[in-house]
Amino acid sequence: MRRTADVVVVGGGVIGCAVARELARRGARTIVVERGEVGAEATRAAAGMVAPQAESSGPGPLLRLGIASRERYAAWTEALAAESGVDVEYRTDGIVYAALTAADVRVLAARARWQRAAGLRVERLAHPRRHVPALGPQVRMALHFPDDHRVNNERLATALVVAARRAGVAVLERTPVAAVRARRGKVTGVDTGAGPVDAPVVVNAAGAWAGRLGLPPGVAPPPVFPVRGQIIVLRGGLEVVPRPLYSLRGYVVPRVDGRVLAGSTLEDAGYEKRVTAGAAADILAAACAMVPRLAGLTLDTAYAGLRPATPDHRPIIGAAPDLDGLVHATGHYRSGILLAPITAEAIADVVMDGRTALPVAAMRPGRFARRRRR
Amino acid sequence: MRRTADVVVVGGGVIGCAVARELARRGARTIVVERGEVGAEATRAAAGMVAPQAESSGPGPLLRLGIASRERYAAWTEALAAESGVDVEYRTDGIVYAALTAADVRVLAARARWQRAAGLRVERLAHPRRHVPALGPQVRMALHFPDDHRVNNERLATALVVAARRAGVAVLERTPVAAVRARRGKVTGVDTGAGPVDAPVVVNAAGAWAGRLGLPPGVAPPPVFPVRGQIIVLRGGLEVVPRPLYSLRGYVVPRVDGRVLAGSTLEDAGYEKRVTAGAAADILAAACAMVPRLAGLTLDTAYAGLRPATPDHRPIIGAAPDLDGLVHATGHYRSGILLAPITAEAIADVVMDGRTALPVAAMRPGRFARRRRR
Repeated sequence: MRRTADVVVVGGGVIGCAVARELARRGARTIVVERGEVGAEATRAAAGMVAPQAESSGPGPLLRLGIASRERYAAWTEALAAESGVDVEYRTDGIVYAALTAADVRVLAARARWQRAAGLRVERLAHPRRHVPALGPQVRMALHFPDDHRVNNERLATALVVAARRAGVAVLERTPVAAVRARRGKVTGVDTGAGPVDAPVVVNAAGAWAGRLGLPPGVAPPPVFPVRGQIIVLRGGLEVVPRPLYSLRGYVVPRVDGRVLAGSTLEDAGYEKRVTAGAAADILAAACAMVPRLAGLTLDTAYAGLRPATPDHRPIIGAAPDLDGLVHATGHYRSGILLAPITAEAIADVVMDGRTALPVAAMRPGRFARRRRR
Repeated sequence: MRRTADVVVVGGGVIGCAVARELARRGARTIVVERGEVGAEATRAAAGMVAPQAESSGPGPLLRLGIASRERYAAWTEALAAESGVDVEYRTDGIVYAALTAADVRVLAARARWQRAAGLRVERLAHPRRHVPALGPQVRMALHFPDDHRVNNERLATALVVAARRAGVAVLERTPVAAVRARRGKVTGVDTGAGPVDAPVVVNAAGAWAGRLGLPPGVAPPPVFPVRGQIIVLRGGLEVVPRPLYSLRGYVVPRVDGRVLAGSTLEDAGYEKRVTAGAAADILAAACAMVPRLAGLTLDTAYAGLRPATPDHRPIIGAAPDLDGLVHATGHYRSGILLAPITAEAIADVVMDGRTALPVAAMRPGRFARRRRR
């Protein structure tokens, strides 16, 4: 069977599905090709934070992009709920970031300073246990980021794929892409495990596998590599942890159903998705140090995911410099949930109009070209 | 349906099945009545140690009983293998007990002294990493108990129930006992969820539930209470941990299939079997401190069990003082696997001959009577 589309999106994670939905809404016949199941991998193994401030490592274009994406979240998730009927549990109750040592206090105080200087809201809680009684006695101070939000990433993935399908997107699951085809420097489609798909545009939203797409000779794969993260899921914690709590050693994030996610690690373990004893020990120790009452919660499950990282820890968003019709939407590392709405918008702009006014210049694929080209 | 037997054994754990097999071998028509599944509860949630020396808290009748039971293990498991066809993975490679702090060194040195004085073999390893390279740099010294052994407790439970059935024992699973019936001070049987069983002898091997048997008015239940223990199972560790390793903060025990059991906790949590975040954190931290390479193993599963404890931490073995035909075989706390063969022998002696020459006088049920009777 030979399929035809305007755009093939490779990868059915939160980025691929968001891009596909947006393209379909703008009139493009779009097919998502996913090697496994939609909403798996890094999309599933996330905590669902919409938190550019709490998770920022400093000012710069990534923070600006994150804040622009966060500003879109309320309207975007409202539209998704209307289109899909799925409540994605978008919550705007802010994030508390706890300092457990004197060194932590210095790091967080500096973070508060530069964010305030950048015009962002940050509250310093001198007596954090008055605001969050569950915090342990080790906690010395905390920051509150009132504008950082959260979503249930598993429900978000479901909502996106339903909305995409209802907008006309075809989704092929369990369908690996063997190669991106091209003729005379232009994309002509992809070869998949379920046959070829003809299309003049291919969007690479393959996450940690985005560098292994089977590109034509001479076309540089994006420099994406996997960084493993592990999450431990506890049960029975809604009253213990009513809101997300962060420290420099990990986070605990509640779900509406009473589960609490505790994470996470940053590990160079290749493509090996495993939950290890050492990571579980570290995650649980950090979580219990911040919130001692978590020690009494029930261990539910644990999982690992592979974040798509890049050399500068910024995503790769935009047209490939060396192949017409190839567009990258990958490398979102720890921010795929946060950046999904603005990535979808930017990629749809690029595909439909050839350009975007959104602040993704610093995310352009060509920025790595000098050191990689022969 | 009304059943008849010579002996009803209440409880299908390792103690109940071992007792039933021994009784059947001596000619008694025996029925095991188990509220859930055989080989579950404390039997499953054990590490399978046959280790009276490593696990001893001091000299006394419990140690003597444990050593007498250990002496029976080789022949007993050989007979079980022949009767059942199940290899119970009995291993005689000894146990290494590591000291991680100066205080640990003092405790273990004292343990070595009194055990040697009692004529038991204990080797002091001044350079334990030469013997067990996986031990971490924190380990300062270790003891080796060459005569302490181990078995796969899950396989042991399977072997016992198969051997018991082949010896003629009937096993009723998912059959709760509602009451022990008696007339004129003598047992006449039990009422179960599957109807009555008439029998002149009832053996109470109900583990942590042994105090809730539904005894006739005026008959004192044995003072057994549950102590929760949690175990974390790791995968891929046979080369990391080729033999059982203990410390004062926990143990790691390998299985032939490459799993490694890490445990354990002592918790007063009633009958609530849960795996908690705090216990998992403690167990994993203790295991990784002793054997740092365990940090790289895969987290497989976790479970909790309820050990049947007694006020003096000794089992309750023998005829009840206040009801003819009621015999207790319970309260084995952390030593049910170790003590199964000698308990079976002693109980069969008591049931068949009215007495036993085995050293169970200090385990007699009547020892709690003074403070419990009205």
